[in-house]
Amino acid sequence: MRTIQKLGEVGLIERMKRRLSRRPGVLVGIGDDAAVLRTPRAGKLLFASDMIVEGVHFDRSKTPADLIGWKALACNVSDIAVMGGSPLWAVVSLGLPPKTPIHVVDEIYRGLERGARQFDLSIVGGDTVRAPCIIVDVAIIGQLWRKNPILRSGARLGDDLYVTGTLGGSYASGHHARFIPRLKEAQSLLRKVSIHAMMDLSDGLALDLWQMSYASERVLRVEASRVPVARTAQGLSEALHGGEDFELLFAAAADDSKRVPKQLKACPVTKIGWVVKKGIGVELEYPDGRVEKLKPRGFRHF
Amino acid sequence: MRTIQKLGEVGLIERMKRRLSRRPGVLVGIGDDAAVLRTPRAGKLLFASDMIVEGVHFDRSKTPADLIGWKALACNVSDIAVMGGSPLWAVVSLGLPPKTPIHVVDEIYRGLERGARQFDLSIVGGDTVRAPCIIVDVAIIGQLWRKNPILRSGARLGDDLYVTGTLGGSYASGHHARFIPRLKEAQSLLRKVSIHAMMDLSDGLALDLWQMSYASERVLRVEASRVPVARTAQGLSEALHGGEDFELLFAAAADDSKRVPKQLKACPVTKIGWVVKKGIGVELEYPDGRVEKLKPRGFRHF
Repeated sequence: MRTIQKLGEVGLIERMKRRLSRRPGVLVGIGDDAAVLRTPRAGKLLFASDMIVEGVHFDRSKTPADLIGWKALACNVSDIAVMGGSPLWAVVSLGLPPKTPIHVVDEIYRGLERGARQFDLSIVGGDTVRAPCIIVDVAIIGQLWRKNPILRSGARLGDDLYVTGTLGGSYASGHHARFIPRLKEAQSLLRKVSIHAMMDLSDGLALDLWQMSYASERVLRVEASRVPVARTAQGLSEALHGGEDFELLFAAAADDSKRVPKQLKACPVTKIGWVVKKGIGVELEYPDGRVEKLKPRGFRHF
Repeated sequence: MRTIQKLGEVGLIERMKRRLSRRPGVLVGIGDDAAVLRTPRAGKLLFASDMIVEGVHFDRSKTPADLIGWKALACNVSDIAVMGGSPLWAVVSLGLPPKTPIHVVDEIYRGLERGARQFDLSIVGGDTVRAPCIIVDVAIIGQLWRKNPILRSGARLGDDLYVTGTLGGSYASGHHARFIPRLKEAQSLLRKVSIHAMMDLSDGLALDLWQMSYASERVLRVEASRVPVARTAQGLSEALHGGEDFELLFAAAADDSKRVPKQLKACPVTKIGWVVKKGIGVELEYPDGRVEKLKPRGFRHF
């Protein structure tokens, strides 16, 4: 089997260049020390990165290699989408064991390129290094297509809380690597509704609610019966704590609730709760009226 | 000992925010899904990333943790410098084993922050994930302060080749993690001389010359006696193939040679050879006139 050890770094980069398409605005792409990009005429830039590691964010025996590339790009596109932006350019740092078969790298790039085409961005450079396992780190530049970014710190008293899609069971069902970032849905929502705070659900609803609570300094309450549990999830607990749903979590004024669509094409939008008061905390309300503190437990990074 | 497993990701990010300074142009920094940056008024953007992996690019028993952070940022600053740019913003993806002591992470951030201050850039976000070893991937955005970027593809017939500093022995001497990227030197040279091609020496002079040759489609020749061998290097071979020198390699018209300074403050600038003819290849000329092909052997990534 041909491995990347035989191909070497220069061979790898050449292979990569041939596989990736280039969109307007890229003056110099892959192959030099840095990419040269035409600055978007107006507006603000968004800049983020997300790293995925074999054995932590994907399992090589279960995740086809092209989905490794897809996932690495998709979670970055998701970060740009929830800020109210659209992606422009990405660089990819790839860590690979020397014995990695070439076709695995090709498939990772195929997944990256598929994402680049679908979300209309260019992969313009990066780095390729030896590592003990497969690591894909994508850094992304996006453009804010509206005046102000949507932050996770903007939830206010009187806001309702919403999520898109269904939650839980992401890892077991393979959704974690196949998901389509909610770029169109975020843009569509932002055109219809004045959204005060938004973020993507990556660490699990409970932990992400905590992050919004912490940033907004507001106590958030979720109604247990309203949480849209995925068919693949094993009950509410997994929907609350499973992680890697990559759905949207957002806050909008209760007065605005009529403008929030119940459905965006095939994607449901569900009201799950509301902003209770000033302070930091997340509460779970059961159908019998009992209210519990929801612990900030979710995807454990460490 | 307190490890990052105890601190958790949210704790880590908070710690990071407190440690990193923020420069103008950063509208939203660490803590949201993406950073929001004010687009530089004019000019083109540079975008690059460089990943360093424990056991490959540094040895934890020999490299103090703050130098891990320093190195990760410095090699990115170097990429921006050689394009004719200056750094603006960086995001840092950090992979860490759960048992990493907190003080190690603090020191990595201290090194990153030291670099950010010295090179006047802001670290505006990133990611922190579990990994089997320490991985630091930095993505950097720079600004081109001149009209056109300097590429590695610009070497022409009639050009001489130059390097800054001395080469070889970088890993053994610790230079690979302590080096100061040649940002000022690149800027100073570009103001004085019309440089046709430039890149940084990361994979070893021989391999990097091959890359310039390949990109420029010119055969390059180096005089063995002119290569500035570092005192810490074990002879010419290490200066040619050692790697991680992070010095500048550049090509400028022989007619322009009087404008090339011999010294930039403490940093020597040495003419090492010239562009021979069209084609791809690198030659080594010995004092007795013998000319050998120089093999593209250098730092092996795989």
